[in-house]
Amino acid sequence: MAKRINFGDMESNRQIDELTELVQQGHLKYLPHMSVDSVIFSFHECQLKVLLLRMMDQPLYSLPGGYVGREEDLDGAAQRILQERTGLDNIYLEQCGAFGDHRRTERKEGQDLFQSLGVQVPNGNWIVQRFISVGYYALVNHAAAQPSPGFLDAECKWWPAGELPTMIFDHRAIVQKALDTLRLLLDHKVARSRLLPETFTMNELQHLYESILGKSLLRANFQRKMLSMDLLERLDKKFGGGAHKAPYLYRFK
Amino acid sequence: MAKRINFGDMESNRQIDELTELVQQGHLKYLPHMSVDSVIFSFHECQLKVLLLRMMDQPLYSLPGGYVGREEDLDGAAQRILQERTGLDNIYLEQCGAFGDHRRTERKEGQDLFQSLGVQVPNGNWIVQRFISVGYYALVNHAAAQPSPGFLDAECKWWPAGELPTMIFDHRAIVQKALDTLRLLLDHKVARSRLLPETFTMNELQHLYESILGKSLLRANFQRKMLSMDLLERLDKKFGGGAHKAPYLYRFK
Repeated sequence: MAKRINFGDMESNRQIDELTELVQQGHLKYLPHMSVDSVIFSFHECQLKVLLLRMMDQPLYSLPGGYVGREEDLDGAAQRILQERTGLDNIYLEQCGAFGDHRRTERKEGQDLFQSLGVQVPNGNWIVQRFISVGYYALVNHAAAQPSPGFLDAECKWWPAGELPTMIFDHRAIVQKALDTLRLLLDHKVARSRLLPETFTMNELQHLYESILGKSLLRANFQRKMLSMDLLERLDKKFGGGAHKAPYLYRFK
Repeated sequence: MAKRINFGDMESNRQIDELTELVQQGHLKYLPHMSVDSVIFSFHECQLKVLLLRMMDQPLYSLPGGYVGREEDLDGAAQRILQERTGLDNIYLEQCGAFGDHRRTERKEGQDLFQSLGVQVPNGNWIVQRFISVGYYALVNHAAAQPSPGFLDAECKWWPAGELPTMIFDHRAIVQKALDTLRLLLDHKVARSRLLPETFTMNELQHLYESILGKSLLRANFQRKMLSMDLLERLDKKFGGGAHKAPYLYRFK
């Protein structure tokens, strides 16, 4: 649920003060022209999901992103920003690309955001100049991750990867690049991720692959391929009762 | 062979003038804090090779790199820089990562370069500030690529990936990241690359894989894996004569 912002209250005044300071002083603290955006995937109800934010009273969604401190490592910035904007901590982030089309942040969404909040942005201010963004992505366990919006955002929630809302700038292309990277590296990544609970059935694993690849797989072929890669350990059957029907449980070695 | 620089000649005066202008005016033309470096691989004499530059009278080698124009796409900058510094044109470059440790360009190699050439670099000048570099890589055909140094460099040549000379900053780590990326994506990349001539024997293909992976492979296993991936088309034998000994030629489908 979106949290309603009342511009008369103290919380919003603090938000406006912080944004005003970011516009006026941010270039002293952060590198100009350089940002980070992260694509956080989880797997829930047989769907691949992506974590998106929506800032106060803004119509468009965005990836959790931010700026790189002048004395801060790029990878460290990605970790800090994710923590500040979603509460997610200690997430293993990897890069999926640098997004550098020279008009990518030219659209007026940036300026709109500040102006609708009553924050003045002088022409040529660092915050509305060109930004190159480095994209990161991570695979997290849906049950363990409990994201919540930082103080600038009204909403922080999971969206099905196939049903994303309208996003700012090229954020949808960043999601697509993270997904493409994930697809290329699927077997490596899935085994090392926490997308699935510790033990799972072959059927659950197949649903996960299908939701990432965006297509159906033949059950027999999928099972043969998975077992031939020598990544899985077979455990006991899932539950007692009708032993013929109960599926085996697996875990990654 | 290294081209000797004589600082009394007109060519060097032009180089010093251009470098002086870069130091003094470059921040107007290029984004600050942002660079591009490319790792160009070829395969020659059964070795994976990397293209490196050495600037005039400098001891250290570097990747072909440069700055991103303020109105230029990041990918376009990588193409332009590679062309300017090596003469290689129309190369299919892909990213292998963004390198952003905040001390990565703090070493004095940058300042040394300019000062040894007699170019004054004021403290805090844009060119000796922190740079985040986006790494690109490409696989090129050794026979077709004819690299030559741009006017700032004395040398532009292929080095065996296993015997690289001392390089500036974290350029060796960028080569390693490109190599890791290539290894992860090997089957996809090799088939789409021009590392091998159009037709090749299974033995040549195995040598290429071995030189990229940095280890020996069992011939029978390698052949079985390659044929099972359905990427290769088998052609006639390589040459006449002793038909039993002549190897088959292959090409990628």
